[in-house]
Amino acid sequence: MATPIFLIQFGLGTVGQALTEQVLATRESQARYGIDLRYVALADSDGALVSERALEDGVIQSASRFKQRGGRLAEHDLGYYQDNLKALVDTMGQPRTIVIDTTAAAPDTVFPAFELALSRGYALALANKKPLADAQARWDHLTAGGRIGYEATVGAGLPVISTLRYLLDTNDEVTKIEGAFSGTLGFLMGELECGTSFSASVREAKARGWTEPDPRDDLSGLDVARKALILARTLGATLELADVALTPLYPADFAALSLDEFMARLEELDPLLADQQRAVQERGAFLRYGASVKVGQETSSLVVGPLTVDSENPLAALRGPDNLISFHSARYSARPLVIRGPGAGAAVTASGLLGDILRLSQHL
Amino acid sequence: MATPIFLIQFGLGTVGQALTEQVLATRESQARYGIDLRYVALADSDGALVSERALEDGVIQSASRFKQRGGRLAEHDLGYYQDNLKALVDTMGQPRTIVIDTTAAAPDTVFPAFELALSRGYALALANKKPLADAQARWDHLTAGGRIGYEATVGAGLPVISTLRYLLDTNDEVTKIEGAFSGTLGFLMGELECGTSFSASVREAKARGWTEPDPRDDLSGLDVARKALILARTLGATLELADVALTPLYPADFAALSLDEFMARLEELDPLLADQQRAVQERGAFLRYGASVKVGQETSSLVVGPLTVDSENPLAALRGPDNLISFHSARYSARPLVIRGPGAGAAVTASGLLGDILRLSQHL
Repeated sequence: MATPIFLIQFGLGTVGQALTEQVLATRESQARYGIDLRYVALADSDGALVSERALEDGVIQSASRFKQRGGRLAEHDLGYYQDNLKALVDTMGQPRTIVIDTTAAAPDTVFPAFELALSRGYALALANKKPLADAQARWDHLTAGGRIGYEATVGAGLPVISTLRYLLDTNDEVTKIEGAFSGTLGFLMGELECGTSFSASVREAKARGWTEPDPRDDLSGLDVARKALILARTLGATLELADVALTPLYPADFAALSLDEFMARLEELDPLLADQQRAVQERGAFLRYGASVKVGQETSSLVVGPLTVDSENPLAALRGPDNLISFHSARYSARPLVIRGPGAGAAVTASGLLGDILRLSQHL
Repeated sequence: MATPIFLIQFGLGTVGQALTEQVLATRESQARYGIDLRYVALADSDGALVSERALEDGVIQSASRFKQRGGRLAEHDLGYYQDNLKALVDTMGQPRTIVIDTTAAAPDTVFPAFELALSRGYALALANKKPLADAQARWDHLTAGGRIGYEATVGAGLPVISTLRYLLDTNDEVTKIEGAFSGTLGFLMGELECGTSFSASVREAKARGWTEPDPRDDLSGLDVARKALILARTLGATLELADVALTPLYPADFAALSLDEFMARLEELDPLLADQQRAVQERGAFLRYGASVKVGQETSSLVVGPLTVDSENPLAALRGPDNLISFHSARYSARPLVIRGPGAGAAVTASGLLGDILRLSQHL
């Protein structure tokens, strides 16, 4: 007899939709693990669909299609208005519940709901990096009981967090983690290497929808910094986002510009980037936008920005939008353990969440 | 209160020694998982040390040092003679036992012990590929209950099996697995690429102890074929070792030679390999010794031998002894998920076993 596991999901965007689809499609794996995943609530920013026993498959699919067409759950036939995720967890949670966050919501929006969930013994599965990259005290609170999964926050579905956890569990000493965690920045650095101007490739990436509406949200490196911080904290470091030595791909005075001004002045950045690229190339090295994470007992360092890597570095072989992460440790000292592959996309991000859900289910 | 988990370990060679060391060093991880790993038996080919409650740390360390100096457990102060692993499992097993195989013993030697263990509800953690690459019926029997871990059989400590399991559990459709799983063959192919003659590099690898005493044990590709078969069976294929399309790095008539004759005639193979290398190079491609595993509902194919890979293939970037595996699936279709790193060595192989032990412990 399969044990029911109750799911409350925040967000029904592309990742949330992919996850509901995968949950419905994996009845067989669930049975193998002796569990039966049941959605009791699906929420977006101001609406929700709920059912105490379980939302029917047809209802979940209809909600998903409704969102794809641009609808809001509050306006769905079976939906209702809600703007309090904590209250939703309060009313819909019961023993063996997992609260899933597929949003990019601000920490303050979701943290009270997470806090309540953990206090009730529920588990959390997060694709949302922001609550995990918020104050260290919040990280400590969220991770203290080990009832949290966040594989999808770094490298989407790539087994990054699980591999790190495995190295730590088997008592390996992880000395350094290096990686490239942004497909968009990977594309831009690749274009730069091919001689395309920085401004032209930013314009192209923006036109193709590969950047955020304001490309500075990618170019700032802030998203990479959050991922680096999550890795460092998983390694046991006590650090804040402000401790990351972060170098954006634009000068400080470009931060205050309006989006239109920024786009208009993009060409001013070309010589700077071209010079950097040339200098690195002349040394026989490679310029990659990435993160270097070193956590020691005395000091830790977290560097995010354009990295100069030599030809021996696994990052040197990286072209295009793939993510790549290399773990250097006592056991992997001569040569690192490397994981590489697409690190973004709805289906692979959802699979990272689903992997967490399957694992967490067995401890509820 | 931590739950005691009882360990019966076959083999105390380099991997077995590394595992005992890691088990003793991971008390903290064990506590975090709510378990307490206790050795109740350590066995080698004809001896054992046993203690029903738990072998003391000092005894385990002394046994390990004794083996390092070339001793046999039967001759250890606290050891006794045994040549029946099934009887050992029978007398030393109890609820919540894991039987660990760090040997390269023949299937018939260990299978009866495994069978008894599973019938009693114990779990198995194997670094030994042979029982898993034996008859399909034996595979079915060993894996039926899901109480088996074999991460260490492919890529040592690299997260190969766990990643494959994760893809399957989350309902991804794995269309192809390609990989290089032999550091020794990786070295030889790398030398070939640099223009070194095949015979010279085999002689060098043998002199350095990187090959088995009879290099044909590596050059046959049989070990790679076993790993490919394990991957294919994990994917659900019903196949035997004989179904692998296996191309050794020597012609069939060299198989019957004595070791001395084989070594004496090694130079005869040079033109053949050099020609292959040249032909592949002229096409702008790369020659790698590896495995290609495709498992379909209708037909499956398992190819092990020298593979011609183009520059886009992740295997093209591989130099030297690293293992590399790429997973192609419905979700990872445009670009594969790739794992790379050292795939052999006592410490990393033991860590693969320990990861399995920690995971299995939670379901006993």
